[in-house]
Amino acid sequence: MDVTTRIEAAVENAVDKVACGDCPPLMSSAARYAVFPGGARIRPRLALAVATACGDDRPWLTDAAAASIELLHCASLVHDDLPCFDDAPMRRGKPSTHLAYGEPLAVLVGDALIVRAFEVPGEAIKRSDDCRRALDVIRIVARSAGMPRGIAAGQAWELEPTVGVGDYQRAKTGSLFAAASEAGAAAAGHDAEAWWTLGDSLGEAYQVADDIRDVTGNPDELGKPVGRDAELGRPSAVAQYGVGGAKQRLKRLVDTAMDSIPECPGRAELKTEIEVQSRRFLPAELIGHAA
Amino acid sequence: MDVTTRIEAAVENAVDKVACGDCPPLMSSAARYAVFPGGARIRPRLALAVATACGDDRPWLTDAAAASIELLHCASLVHDDLPCFDDAPMRRGKPSTHLAYGEPLAVLVGDALIVRAFEVPGEAIKRSDDCRRALDVIRIVARSAGMPRGIAAGQAWELEPTVGVGDYQRAKTGSLFAAASEAGAAAAGHDAEAWWTLGDSLGEAYQVADDIRDVTGNPDELGKPVGRDAELGRPSAVAQYGVGGAKQRLKRLVDTAMDSIPECPGRAELKTEIEVQSRRFLPAELIGHAA
Repeated sequence: MDVTTRIEAAVENAVDKVACGDCPPLMSSAARYAVFPGGARIRPRLALAVATACGDDRPWLTDAAAASIELLHCASLVHDDLPCFDDAPMRRGKPSTHLAYGEPLAVLVGDALIVRAFEVPGEAIKRSDDCRRALDVIRIVARSAGMPRGIAAGQAWELEPTVGVGDYQRAKTGSLFAAASEAGAAAAGHDAEAWWTLGDSLGEAYQVADDIRDVTGNPDELGKPVGRDAELGRPSAVAQYGVGGAKQRLKRLVDTAMDSIPECPGRAELKTEIEVQSRRFLPAELIGHAA
Repeated sequence: MDVTTRIEAAVENAVDKVACGDCPPLMSSAARYAVFPGGARIRPRLALAVATACGDDRPWLTDAAAASIELLHCASLVHDDLPCFDDAPMRRGKPSTHLAYGEPLAVLVGDALIVRAFEVPGEAIKRSDDCRRALDVIRIVARSAGMPRGIAAGQAWELEPTVGVGDYQRAKTGSLFAAASEAGAAAAGHDAEAWWTLGDSLGEAYQVADDIRDVTGNPDELGKPVGRDAELGRPSAVAQYGVGGAKQRLKRLVDTAMDSIPECPGRAELKTEIEVQSRRFLPAELIGHAA
């Protein structure tokens, strides 16, 4: 099974219970709408790549970790897009969930996906010694989503009068990338903490690249409007460092990520995979340097 | 330590990470506002009462289960009160969270409390054989909060054109009571499923009592307005059975709850405790019959 198929199957399996025949039908439909079709699924790809590099000896836990992280990511997009936050009309090239299904269902879909993210790892257990790993995955994912340094904290920093762009982006974006990396390692029975820097650096790189695209990108290709960060007075690497400075920061972050990869059976293959994935979000002139 | 002190300490310990010095300060304050001062804390009381009846041999897991359930309950209140749902001005005798802190923080506080509810049981582990119990607590709590039959599903049924009052109330209210009962048993190493009926029946009883109070109650005593169910066209036991029929249903539910209590070391004390707690929400003329 190729990586894309495996990830979609894992996410499908996780969403099934949130969108089944016993569910309120509108909610069921809205939940699927929020998760499918996906974006680049870059976070579960990272979880899977790390688990694979670590041996992937419990693929069912790897799948659960990857799905859990993707559900949290989708939930955060649905809630971020709400009128009281970004009031975003489009997401992944189609109307955002609250525009398609109304605000109440958008709030509930986010809530249900968050809950489901924490239900999936426990359900995946097949052997008694999986318990410890499943709990590690839950702990890692919870830390990346909540307070004081997860996605919810990142979003909440937007509501404060002052915030450093580093803290903000680390919480809002980096945290889930760090969790993807750590949870992939934990699912495969490796020391999660050693994998934090990889995800943290890639997450900040991804956010910086997004900030750059928000200024220089094409809205048709992105599937969402550009110029929103400045419009919303949002902390942004471009606002802080300028476009040139942001690109240099991006390059350094990808280098840091590559250098941080711990010793593991599949280290070389993982480096190649990260190089390939990074090309998706690196500005063209940086490709080659960053690898 | 008496029960009230123990529950407040458990909830305080759980909220601490959502409202600490590293958190965005407004969010931190809003999170505490949503959880303290509490209402009757009837769900964590039930969890604690069941765990105690089952021997309470891992009090740290019992505390985590009780706190987890209370955080989910508080999160659901904050989200239910949002303008896109009930648009409730008051909760627990003070302005609802979105009125006090704004809608964005109310959405985020709900999200962060949900996440925290799933982080707490894993953090509570002290012995290696606690893992299985903590995962059971997480599974039980997740099922009660999400889809297809948890609080989120209950709330989503309000948005469907038709729904039976039983299914609706079971999901919206009963589910968390059932989880309190089951999680209390699981924390103490007992078979959770055997305790489902107790919580489910008490939960429906509590909701029916709430429906009756919504028609007959005093808004000053309740700390919230009355007549909201009819105003919102909400499914309600009173709308379905009339006030008299609803009271009869309430009595039967409390009887079912009492009869369902499985054999356990503290069965007699638990019956007494439930009798005492039921008096808090039973209409005066039913007290005595129901016990």
